[in-house]
Amino acid sequence: MLRSSHDTFFGLSCPYGQADIVLFGAPFDSTTSFRPGARFAPRAMRTDSVGLESYSPYQDLDLLDYPVCDAGDLELSIGNTQKTLEAIEQQTATILRGGKLPFMLGGEHLVTLGAVRAAVKRYPGLHVLHLDAHTDLRDDYLGEPLSHATVMRRIWELVGDGAIHQFGIRSGEREEFLFAQAHTDLHRFTLGGFAETVRALRGLPVYLSVDLDVLDPSVFPGTGTPEAGGVGFPELLDALRCVGGLDIVGCDLVELSPPYDASGVSTAVANKLLRELLLTLTTPTGTGQEDE
Amino acid sequence: MLRSSHDTFFGLSCPYGQADIVLFGAPFDSTTSFRPGARFAPRAMRTDSVGLESYSPYQDLDLLDYPVCDAGDLELSIGNTQKTLEAIEQQTATILRGGKLPFMLGGEHLVTLGAVRAAVKRYPGLHVLHLDAHTDLRDDYLGEPLSHATVMRRIWELVGDGAIHQFGIRSGEREEFLFAQAHTDLHRFTLGGFAETVRALRGLPVYLSVDLDVLDPSVFPGTGTPEAGGVGFPELLDALRCVGGLDIVGCDLVELSPPYDASGVSTAVANKLLRELLLTLTTPTGTGQEDE
Amino acid sequence: MLRSSHDTFFGLSCPYGQADIVLFGAPFDSTTSFRPGARFAPRAMRTDSVGLESYSPYQDLDLLDYPVCDAGDLELSIGNTQKTLEAIEQQTATILRGGKLPFMLGGEHLVTLGAVRAAVKRYPGLHVLHLDAHTDLRDDYLGEPLSHATVMRRIWELVGDGAIHQFGIRSGEREEFLFAQAHTDLHRFTLGGFAETVRALRGLPVYLSVDLDVLDPSVFPGTGTPEAGGVGFPELLDALRCVGGLDIVGCDLVELSPPYDASGVSTAVANKLLRELLLTLTTPTGTGQEDE
Amino acid sequence: MLRSSHDTFFGLSCPYGQADIVLFGAPFDSTTSFRPGARFAPRAMRTDSVGLESYSPYQDLDLLDYPVCDAGDLELSIGNTQKTLEAIEQQTATILRGGKLPFMLGGEHLVTLGAVRAAVKRYPGLHVLHLDAHTDLRDDYLGEPLSHATVMRRIWELVGDGAIHQFGIRSGEREEFLFAQAHTDLHRFTLGGFAETVRALRGLPVYLSVDLDVLDPSVFPGTGTPEAGGVGFPELLDALRCVGGLDIVGCDLVELSPPYDASGVSTAVANKLLRELLLTLTTPTGTGQEDE
Amino acid sequence: MLRSSHDTFFGLSCPYGQADIVLFGAPFDSTTSFRPGARFAPRAMRTDSVGLESYSPYQDLDLLDYPVCDAGDLELSIGNTQKTLEAIEQQTATILRGGKLPFMLGGEHLVTLGAVRAAVKRYPGLHVLHLDAHTDLRDDYLGEPLSHATVMRRIWELVGDGAIHQFGIRSGEREEFLFAQAHTDLHRFTLGGFAETVRALRGLPVYLSVDLDVLDPSVFPGTGTPEAGGVGFPELLDALRCVGGLDIVGCDLVELSPPYDASGVSTAVANKLLRELLLTLTTPTGTGQEDE
Amino acid sequence: MLRSSHDTFFGLSCPYGQADIVLFGAPFDSTTSFRPGARFAPRAMRTDSVGLESYSPYQDLDLLDYPVCDAGDLELSIGNTQKTLEAIEQQTATILRGGKLPFMLGGEHLVTLGAVRAAVKRYPGLHVLHLDAHTDLRDDYLGEPLSHATVMRRIWELVGDGAIHQFGIRSGEREEFLFAQAHTDLHRFTLGGFAETVRALRGLPVYLSVDLDVLDPSVFPGTGTPEAGGVGFPELLDALRCVGGLDIVGCDLVELSPPYDASGVSTAVANKLLRELLLTLTTPTGTGQEDE
Repeated sequence: MLRSSHDTFFGLSCPYGQADIVLFGAPFDSTTSFRPGARFAPRAMRTDSVGLESYSPYQDLDLLDYPVCDAGDLELSIGNTQKTLEAIEQQTATILRGGKLPFMLGGEHLVTLGAVRAAVKRYPGLHVLHLDAHTDLRDDYLGEPLSHATVMRRIWELVGDGAIHQFGIRSGEREEFLFAQAHTDLHRFTLGGFAETVRALRGLPVYLSVDLDVLDPSVFPGTGTPEAGGVGFPELLDALRCVGGLDIVGCDLVELSPPYDASGVSTAVANKLLRELLLTLTTPTGTGQEDE
Repeated sequence: MLRSSHDTFFGLSCPYGQADIVLFGAPFDSTTSFRPGARFAPRAMRTDSVGLESYSPYQDLDLLDYPVCDAGDLELSIGNTQKTLEAIEQQTATILRGGKLPFMLGGEHLVTLGAVRAAVKRYPGLHVLHLDAHTDLRDDYLGEPLSHATVMRRIWELVGDGAIHQFGIRSGEREEFLFAQAHTDLHRFTLGGFAETVRALRGLPVYLSVDLDVLDPSVFPGTGTPEAGGVGFPELLDALRCVGGLDIVGCDLVELSPPYDASGVSTAVANKLLRELLLTLTTPTGTGQEDE
Repeated sequence: MLRSSHDTFFGLSCPYGQADIVLFGAPFDSTTSFRPGARFAPRAMRTDSVGLESYSPYQDLDLLDYPVCDAGDLELSIGNTQKTLEAIEQQTATILRGGKLPFMLGGEHLVTLGAVRAAVKRYPGLHVLHLDAHTDLRDDYLGEPLSHATVMRRIWELVGDGAIHQFGIRSGEREEFLFAQAHTDLHRFTLGGFAETVRALRGLPVYLSVDLDVLDPSVFPGTGTPEAGGVGFPELLDALRCVGGLDIVGCDLVELSPPYDASGVSTAVANKLLRELLLTLTTPTGTGQEDE
Repeated sequence: MLRSSHDTFFGLSCPYGQADIVLFGAPFDSTTSFRPGARFAPRAMRTDSVGLESYSPYQDLDLLDYPVCDAGDLELSIGNTQKTLEAIEQQTATILRGGKLPFMLGGEHLVTLGAVRAAVKRYPGLHVLHLDAHTDLRDDYLGEPLSHATVMRRIWELVGDGAIHQFGIRSGEREEFLFAQAHTDLHRFTLGGFAETVRALRGLPVYLSVDLDVLDPSVFPGTGTPEAGGVGFPELLDALRCVGGLDIVGCDLVELSPPYDASGVSTAVANKLLRELLLTLTTPTGTGQEDE
Repeated sequence: MLRSSHDTFFGLSCPYGQADIVLFGAPFDSTTSFRPGARFAPRAMRTDSVGLESYSPYQDLDLLDYPVCDAGDLELSIGNTQKTLEAIEQQTATILRGGKLPFMLGGEHLVTLGAVRAAVKRYPGLHVLHLDAHTDLRDDYLGEPLSHATVMRRIWELVGDGAIHQFGIRSGEREEFLFAQAHTDLHRFTLGGFAETVRALRGLPVYLSVDLDVLDPSVFPGTGTPEAGGVGFPELLDALRCVGGLDIVGCDLVELSPPYDASGVSTAVANKLLRELLLTLTTPTGTGQEDE
Repeated sequence: MLRSSHDTFFGLSCPYGQADIVLFGAPFDSTTSFRPGARFAPRAMRTDSVGLESYSPYQDLDLLDYPVCDAGDLELSIGNTQKTLEAIEQQTATILRGGKLPFMLGGEHLVTLGAVRAAVKRYPGLHVLHLDAHTDLRDDYLGEPLSHATVMRRIWELVGDGAIHQFGIRSGEREEFLFAQAHTDLHRFTLGGFAETVRALRGLPVYLSVDLDVLDPSVFPGTGTPEAGGVGFPELLDALRCVGGLDIVGCDLVELSPPYDASGVSTAVANKLLRELLLTLTTPTGTGQEDE
C-alpha cells in the first residue's frame, strides 16, 4: 500500500523519541487584530513542503539526515486565550524536559508567550531574539492584555530589561518605542547589528522568535498585518544562519496567514526559512541543544 | 463639499434619537472553529449596499422612508470573549431602554448570546426564533463553553425548555440532536412549519436570530462553515417576511464571512435580506416594536 | 504548422460573407455604476469556449454545421460613451444591411442602446424583449443620461409605449416601477408570461436583450450588480429556446463580468446560453432572419 | 502530546486490517483537457473535513462508529498515464483481495479506469453506475485514447454493451450520444430513472463512479469543466442513498478541483456526499461488501 | 454608544474648518484602458488604515497630532468624464480658496487633470512633480483626448514647457518620449535626480502627483497597468520625504486598484505612503501650505 | 468591420513567410510535479500584451518595426508526453528549416526537450544557456524519466558534458548538484558570470532556455514551484540583453502559471521580458539568426 510521504514537513519520519528537534504547530489566531488566518499556517506549510527539496544547496546538508520530528498540531481552544497559552506552555515544557529543542510554527505571535513561559522557567537568564515589523510592546490592545500586539510586553515581564533584542522593527505607537528605549534592545527598520548581538549572546540561553512579517510584503504578502518597508529574503536568511553558534533553547516562526496569499509564495518562503533554520540548529555539534 | 452617502447601510441618515430600529455591527469572530472572517461582514455590507436599491418591489416600500438608524460598529476586544459579550449586552440594553429595536449584524453566531442576555432581562418570557444549518447546541467546543458552536445551548440556559424554535438545521453531533429532542423545538433540513410557529408566537416577545448559513452554499458561499443541502433564497425571504406580525424585540443576521466569497454575492444576499427584514419589521403599525 | 482553433467562439470559422449570424464583442464598461469588468467578457468567453462542445444534446444540433461568423471585438473608446455607442450602431447597421443577424456580446448593458438605434432605424415597429434583474428605466444616474441604469429608458424614447417587454425584473427605484406601469410591459421576479408574450410578438421585428444578471447569483455570480432572487438556468434556457419562431433582428448577451467569478462558472453559463440561443436562431428555416 | 485528529478524513482512525471500506486518494490530473487541479482534491477534502460532523442527521448514523480506513494517497507518476493506471489497479486489486470495499477519491475521471480494471477482473459481470455531466465516450481526445474524456469508452471495452448506466449526462459530441444509443444505458440531463436502474441491478456486482460535475455548477463550481444545467444536491443525495441495497464492489468520487473554488464550498459538498455515501455503503448488513 | 473610529483615514477626526490638509477621494476609473478598479481605492484605504499605526517611527511624529481632515469621497458621474473633471476641479478650488492643501486619493490618473486645473488658476506658474511608470503624454488614446494615458499631455497644455518633472518613467510610445525630450523634464527608469529637482523648485508652487505604479509590481501589484522594473518602496519613501521644503499646493496618490491585489499589500503600501507624505507636508512650519 | 488587434502578441501581424522570428505557444503542463497551470501561459500573455507598449525605452526600438510572427499555439496531446514532445520537435524543425528563429512560450519546462531535440540535430555542437531556480537534472521523477524535473538531464544526454550552462540555480537534490559538478557548468544562486559565459559562447550555436522561476517569487509569484531567494527583474533583463551578439538558434520562456497570480503581474513581467528579448534577438544584424 503506497502512501504520500508528505503528511509531515518535508516527509520527516523521525520518531519523537529519537529526535533532537521537535516541530509542532500552534494553529491559533483569536487575538489577531486585523486579519485572521494564521491558524491555517502549519497545515499549509506541511502540504506545500512537497514543493521544496529537503536538501539545502546553501549549507550542503539534507534535512532528512537529521533527527527532526514533526509532532503534528496542538488542538487549541479557539477563542480561549488562557487555555491556549497553557497548552502551548505544557507542550514546550514536555519537549524541553526531554532534552529536545521545541520549534513551534504559529499561528499568530501571541503563541510565543506560552513557549517562552516554559523556556524561562527552565532557563532563568533567558534572552529573546525577536525579528518583527512591529514592536508588540503595547500594554494592552483595546483593553486586552493578551494579544499579538502585546506579546513582547508580556514577555518583558518575564525576562526583564535588556533581555529582549528586537530587529527589523518599523511599526508601533510612540509609547511602544519609548518603552523600548527604556527596556529593550530595539533595532529599527533593518537587521543591522544582528550579527553583533548574536556574538554577544554566545553561551547564554536564547529563545528565537521570528515574526515573518519582518520580511517586506513583496516577499511575504501572506500575513495578517502587512507592513511596507521590510527586510529582504537574503538578509533574513543570512541572519538566521548566524544563530548556529548560539544556545537556542526554543524557536518559532509565526504570522504566516495563507488565506491572504493565494499564490502560495508566502508559504514557500516560510518553508524555506524553516528548512534552513532547522539545518542551522541541528548541525553545529549534532548534540548541541539537547544535552542535559 | 460633496460626500458619498454610503458610509451607512443604504445611505440611511436617520439620527439615533428619531429611530425605531437601530442597526449596529458586532465585528467579532474569535471563537469561529473553522474559518474566521465574519468580523469583516458589517463593513462589507455597508460598502456594498451601494449596489442595492433602498426600494423593495416585493413590499412596494422604500427603506429611506422609515426611521432606521445605522449606529456603526462596536469596538470589540478581539480575543476576549467575555468582554465582547458584555459590550454587546450593554449596547443592546441601551437600545431596548430607548424603546427601539436592536438589529445586530455579526460577526459569528456567539454575538447573539450578548444580545439575548439583554433581551431576556427585559422580556422574561422571551422566545428565540433560530434559523441555521447547525444546532449550535454543544455543551462545549474542545472544552470551551463560549463558542459559536455552543451559543444556542447557552441561550437555552437563559430561556429554558421549549422557547427556542430552530429551523433549517442539518448539522450537529448526535448528542445535540438528542438534546434538542428534549429541550428545543427543532425542525430539520427545511423551513417547514415556520409559518405555524410564527402564528403560535403571536403576542409573545421574540428574538430572531438568522445564521445565514441556513441558506444553501450555492446561494451563500461566504460563510465560515458552509453546509450543503440548505434552503433557497425565496424560501428564506418568504419566512422572514411572515414575522411582520410578531413582537420582535431583537434581531440579528450573522455568519457572513466576506473573505470566503470574492464574488461579493453572499454580501449582496445578506444586504437584500437585511432590507426586506427591516421593511417587514418597520411597517406593520409604524410604531409596533418600540412602544413601551 | 498547427494552431489552436479556439481564437473564435467554439472554433467557428465561417467567413463573414457566408454568415447568417455575426457575433461581435463590445468590450465596454465605462458607465458601470458598481463593479466594472464586463469589458473582459467577450475574450473570456472565447477562451473558455474550448471547454464546451459545439454539439447541443438539447436540440440535437451542432453549431459548427451552421453559418455563424465571429467578427471579433470592436475597438471602443474607453471612457467616451458617445463614440462607443456610435461605433456599435455603425457595426450593427453594417451587419443588418448585409442581411445578417447581429449578435453582440457585452460589455455592460448600455451597449444595447447602440445596437437598438441601428435596429429601430431599419425596423420602425421594433419590439424589445428584455430579460434582466433591473428595470434600467432611470431617467438619469447621478445626473448622467447615458448609463447601464438608464438604457431601457433611452430605448423607450426610441420604440415608444408598449414595445418593451421586461421579464425577471426584481430591482429598481419606485419611480422606475411607476414608469414601467405606464409605459412598458414589465413582468416581476420571474419569466412567467414569457411564452405568451413571444406568441403575441410573432410576425413583428424583435430585438432580444439578455442581461445575464436575470439569473440567480448562485448560477451567475460573475456580474457587476448581483441581485438575489433570480431565475434558474433551466427556466432561462427554456425561455430563450422558445424565441425560435420570432423575427429576431438583433440580439445581445450582456453584463458578464469575469473578474468577479474566478471559478469560471459564469463564463461557462454564458457560453452555453450563447450556443443554445445561436442554434435556436439559426435553425427554424435556415434563412429566416437574413432574407430581405 | 496532543495532535490534531484531522490528518485523515473526519478523523477516521480504523486500521487497515479491521476496515470494511478503504478510502484512498488518487491525486492525478494529467489528462484534464481544460483546467487541471483535481490532483489537490484528496488533500483538500481531508483538511476541510474538520468542518463537517461525522454524525449524519439524515441517516442518524455516525461515521466514527463504522470500520472505515483512510489509507492515504497514492504516489502517482505525474505525467505518465500508463503507470498511474497500473498503480491504481494494483491498489484496488489489493483491497478487493482483502475482502474490503475500495473507495477512491480522484483526481480526474480517468483514474476510474484503473479501479474498474481491477474490479472487472474479480467480478466478470460487472455493471458500472456512472453519474456525470459528460458522456466520456470519445474514442480519443486529440488522438489520445487515455483521457478523462474517453474513460467510459475504455471501460465499455471491458464491460461490454448494456453494462454502463449513465445519468445526468448533458454534454458530449454527437458521436458520443450516438455511441451511447447503441452501447450504453444513457439517461439525459437528470437522474430520472436512477431508482429503477438500481432496483434492476440488485444482486449484480456494481462499480459506482460519481463525477461530481454531474451537480449544477452553482452547487459545485470547483471542477475542471463546469457544465451548466446540472442536478441539485438533494437529488444527488437521494440517488446515492438508494444504492444501499446493491452489491457495490468499488466506488469513486472524482473531478473536484479545489483551486477553482476558493470559497471551499465544492470541497464541503464533496465531503458531505462522501460521508453519506460511506454510511449508506457500510450500514445495510455490516458485512455486505466484504464477505468472501 | 460605541463606534468604530475607522470610518476615516487612520481615524482622523479633525473638522474641515480647522484643517490644514483636506483629504478627499475621487473614485473614478472610466478611462482606464486595461483593467478598471481604481474607483475602489479610497474606500479600501480607509477600511485598511485600521491596520497601520498613526505614529511614524521614521519621522517620530503622530498623524493624529496634526490638523488633517478626511472630507470623504466625491460622488462622481461614472461614465461622464467631463462632469467628473469639473466636480474635481470645483472641490479642489474650494479647498484652495479656504487656504488649505487639497490631497486627492484616486481613482485613475485622469483625476489629476481636474485638480491641476484648479491649482493652475490659482498658481499660474505652477510646476508639476510627476512620479509614474508611464509618460501619460499621448495626444489621444484610441481617438479620445481625455484618458489616463493622456493626462500629462493635457496638463502640459496648461502649464507649458519645462514645468512637468517626470520620474521613474519606463513605458510609453516612441512619440511620447520624443515629445518629452522637447517639452518636459523626463527622468527614465529611476528616481535619480529627484532631490536636485526638488531643490530647484524651492519657492515655486508645486503640484505633486504620484501614480503608484511607479513602484515595482512586486511591491505594488494592485494597479491597472503593472509595469515591471519599477522603483522600490524605500526609494519612493525617501523621495516623498524630501518634498517637505517645497510649496506644495496640491497633491494626489492615484492608480491603486484593490481588486487586483487580494493580499491587501498594495493598499497597505498606499496607506503608509499617505501617512508619511501627510506628515512631511504638515510639519515643516506648521502653517506652510495654508497661509494666504 | 473593426477588430481588436490583440489576438497576437503585441498585435504582431507579420506573416510567417516574411518573419525572422516565429513565436509559438506550447500549452503543456502534464508533468508538472507540484501545481499545474502553465498551459494557460501563452494565451494569458497574448491577452495581457494589450497592457504593454510595443516600444522599448530601454533599447529605443519598437517591436512592430521587426519581422516577428505569432504562429499561435500548438494543439498538444494533453496527458501524452511523448506525442507532445514530438509535436514540438516537428514545429521547431520546420521553423529552423525555414531559416527562422523558433521562440517557444511554455508551458512547463519539459517542452524545452522537444525544441532542443530539433535544434541539436541541425546544430550538432549546440550549447544550452539555462536560467532557472532548479537544476532539473534528476534522472527520473518518481520513476518517470520525462518530467519538468529531469529535462536538463535528458538534454545533457543530447549535448554532452560542458555544453549546459546553468545560472541562478538554488534548488535540487544533492545528487543533482553532484551530477552538475561533473557534467554541467552550474552557477549557484545568482546570474554571476553570465556575461563571461556569453562571451565564451560567441560563434557557437546556442539554445537559450529561461525558466521564469529563476526570478524571485516577489517579482514572479505565478509559477508552479516558487523558490525563494531568486534574482531581480533588472538583473535578468540585463542578462538577457547581453545575448544579442550570440548565435541564438532557439529560445524559450517557460513556467509562467497564470492561475497562481491573480494580480496579473507575473504575466506582465513575462511579456516585458519577451519584448526585450525579441528586440535583442532581432536587432544586431537584422539577418543574424536566419541566414542559411
